Amino acid sequence: MSRTHLRKFSRSETTRAEAFSDGVFAIAVTLLALDLADPPHKPGGLGPALLAQWPAYLGYLASFGYVSVIWLNHHQAFVRIRAMDRGLHAANLFLLLTTAALSFPTAVVADALQTDPTDSDARVAVALYAGLAATMCLSWVAFYQQIARRPELLDPDVEDTYVRHGRLRSWTGALAYTVAGLLGVFIAPLLAIAVFTVLPVFYFVTSEGLPDGTAPPGTGPHADQAARGSAV
Amino acid sequence: MSRTHLRKFSRSETTRAEAFSDGVFAIAVTLLALDLADPPHKPGGLGPALLAQWPAYLGYLASFGYVSVIWLNHHQAFVRIRAMDRGLHAANLFLLLTTAALSFPTAVVADALQTDPTDSDARVAVALYAGLAATMCLSWVAFYQQIARRPELLDPDVEDTYVRHGRLRSWTGALAYTVAGLLGVFIAPLLAIAVFTVLPVFYFVTSEGLPDGTAPPGTGPHADQAARGSAV
Amino acid sequence: MSRTHLRKFSRSETTRAEAFSDGVFAIAVTLLALDLADPPHKPGGLGPALLAQWPAYLGYLASFGYVSVIWLNHHQAFVRIRAMDRGLHAANLFLLLTTAALSFPTAVVADALQTDPTDSDARVAVALYAGLAATMCLSWVAFYQQIARRPELLDPDVEDTYVRHGRLRSWTGALAYTVAGLLGVFIAPLLAIAVFTVLPVFYFVTSEGLPDGTAPPGTGPHADQAARGSAV
Amino acid sequence: MSRTHLRKFSRSETTRAEAFSDGVFAIAVTLLALDLADPPHKPGGLGPALLAQWPAYLGYLASFGYVSVIWLNHHQAFVRIRAMDRGLHAANLFLLLTTAALSFPTAVVADALQTDPTDSDARVAVALYAGLAATMCLSWVAFYQQIARRPELLDPDVEDTYVRHGRLRSWTGALAYTVAGLLGVFIAPLLAIAVFTVLPVFYFVTSEGLPDGTAPPGTGPHADQAARGSAV
Repeated sequence: MSRTHLRKFSRSETTRAEAFSDGVFAIAVTLLALDLADPPHKPGGLGPALLAQWPAYLGYLASFGYVSVIWLNHHQAFVRIRAMDRGLHAANLFLLLTTAALSFPTAVVADALQTDPTDSDARVAVALYAGLAATMCLSWVAFYQQIARRPELLDPDVEDTYVRHGRLRSWTGALAYTVAGLLGVFIAPLLAIAVFTVLPVFYFVTSEGLPDGTAPPGTGPHADQAARGSAV
Repeated sequence: MSRTHLRKFSRSETTRAEAFSDGVFAIAVTLLALDLADPPHKPGGLGPALLAQWPAYLGYLASFGYVSVIWLNHHQAFVRIRAMDRGLHAANLFLLLTTAALSFPTAVVADALQTDPTDSDARVAVALYAGLAATMCLSWVAFYQQIARRPELLDPDVEDTYVRHGRLRSWTGALAYTVAGLLGVFIAPLLAIAVFTVLPVFYFVTSEGLPDGTAPPGTGPHADQAARGSAV
Repeated sequence: MSRTHLRKFSRSETTRAEAFSDGVFAIAVTLLALDLADPPHKPGGLGPALLAQWPAYLGYLASFGYVSVIWLNHHQAFVRIRAMDRGLHAANLFLLLTTAALSFPTAVVADALQTDPTDSDARVAVALYAGLAATMCLSWVAFYQQIARRPELLDPDVEDTYVRHGRLRSWTGALAYTVAGLLGVFIAPLLAIAVFTVLPVFYFVTSEGLPDGTAPPGTGPHADQAARGSAV
Repeated sequence: MSRTHLRKFSRSETTRAEAFSDGVFAIAVTLLALDLADPPHKPGGLGPALLAQWPAYLGYLASFGYVSVIWLNHHQAFVRIRAMDRGLHAANLFLLLTTAALSFPTAVVADALQTDPTDSDARVAVALYAGLAATMCLSWVAFYQQIARRPELLDPDVEDTYVRHGRLRSWTGALAYTVAGLLGVFIAPLLAIAVFTVLPVFYFVTSEGLPDGTAPPGTGPHADQAARGSAV
């Protein structure tokens, strides 16, 4: 009984942080569509003009995918968090700061690629994108770091591996985006774009620690655990 | 008692997916208003300039109506869903990806029609709109497909017909938007716009499986069922 | 007990309609700020350029105030609504459609006044604003109409006067905005702007049916009633 | 029991005000990213063009930080508020009005600094920013004023010092932004920007009344109190 009570309390404690974060994620993801502009064109030239802005579509997919995976990650984290302290708020706000800004390098990359996908501007653009995307991963590192330092912020029954795996995945993401940026700068910008687009899919597909479907969620005695495992 | 408990659990499981989706729907629908711009005009020419952008108003109505119906559909679905797995998250995120992008073809269509409602650009524009709108329906097909494959994600007392009807309506929508696009490309773009505007109204009015008002919602022994039926 | 249960059920029934509406209201209100643009100006001319766009500030105040009052009204309504049917969804979505579009006439009015606050464009602009604002009031008329036709959608203990007063206030608002528009068109556009700015304040201040502070909210035996009365 | 009941009631009373406010905060903060534009540049000139708009990045940091701190403050306030009256709604809406508008002076400052960080336009711009930021603090003064006048709006067990400290911090903020504005106008605009950027960090770090970590949140007998203290 007291367990349940604590749980409820903690959820209400974190409710507004989740609501605010969900708002920022939802807006960040939807604002990306503003980069999909009606292209200027001559009469009869709409079709080719639409095709010519393919980098904008790719950028939309890559950034929408990235923010979606971040959101799923965030969702998984807050299922386990029962209270927030200042440090965790700081890490969360830093994550939101970088997430909200992602539409900026997305637009820069789309523009640069549309002008010339191989010139130095395209290289600068993918470096900017990679830099911000890697920084988003680092904000997750800070997030897990804070949880590791203050384990009382987590539910007592959280998997032992949760924080360790989360930190590992965040460092891996930071590294992957950095490598993608370097490939883009030194080899070919389009290579970086390909990685930017594929990475979220890869993260989405491999994100489950527990195998999928070992137990139908919400039915067995460990329904809570199972549902968590299959949430992402 | 255990029923009620399961219910509550499942609702909290899906709460953040609903909150995030509601955010995206609300923003997608409101961003459509950004296409309603103060038109450039000569002194004294505001009135005619406002009238000349009638395609923008029609586009706003069509897309607002479409996203509204999608939202109502989504609401009806999540009344019945008690847990989410990765596949359902993927279908939901794909739906949000396409919904958030709807303002893009809406602007393209409005611009093209304002320039010349019969030329090839208008045909390209309505094809783009029809393509995205049909893809949104296909994301619903994937959504219902996943529920059909994993029935444990649904409440046990969901109507037998729910998934089947949902899938049928989604395929019908995809087909209707495709036909509207073809009419627009091969006959007249304005014809497509007419269908785009009427379709959401048609879907809204015919969306109830159960007849309206057989029981006052929230009062009878089957209040739950009735309210669901009359929700849309 | 059964009363409380019904209550809870109804609240969850309407939760997503409230969440979606809150989202649209919040975005509609915040997007108004996009009309507050950094004005083009010569070096050293920022100050005068900022002052010259005073109509944009007035428009922001008027529209922010209007949407705020609408939101408070909506909040009061959904405290009393326990279930939604299709008709009520339709009225609500129509309200959101008009609310989301308010930034459009706001920008048109601000622009026209900045060019020349007395010419025919300014008259067209205030007519457009008045027309949309009055339509928002009419969507409230439809809202109350639906509740009057289906009283089972309301909590049983709602004040007898609620629907009647709501309808009266909505018709009054529609009339007030129409009169303001006519004043603007036939006398002076600035007169209409003055009314647009003052009306929300007037509605906010006079919106309480019950006198303020007869009972401290949330403490007396009729806490529920009192808190409702003082909510707006 | 009756205590708990009252609590629940009050939370639902304020739920929509929190949801609407969270929406406005989330959107206000995310719209700031729209000022981070892809800079116009010559082929090969993207890098320098990106660097040249450093004031936009600084403005983004300063305003994102400021709204974040406002949100945390708001969160702390609504943990303690159990009912709202019209006056508190007015103060809250005034806060949202100023918060939503913050992207406007942020863009003005970024533009002016990018043109010339020392000329009269930059001085006007920082004065505008300081004026709005100080007004946001004054809306908090009105907020606390209303709570002081109507203590029944607060939970009975709120710390005695809460309102007094809140008012003091709000006046201090208004003063700090005013001084920063004066420094910017009479000495150097960049000095004002430095203060704008540092102030939110300062407020974030010093915002806790109770020392951090005296008790793990959510575990001790005074978990509620402790979690509140460490929320910011």
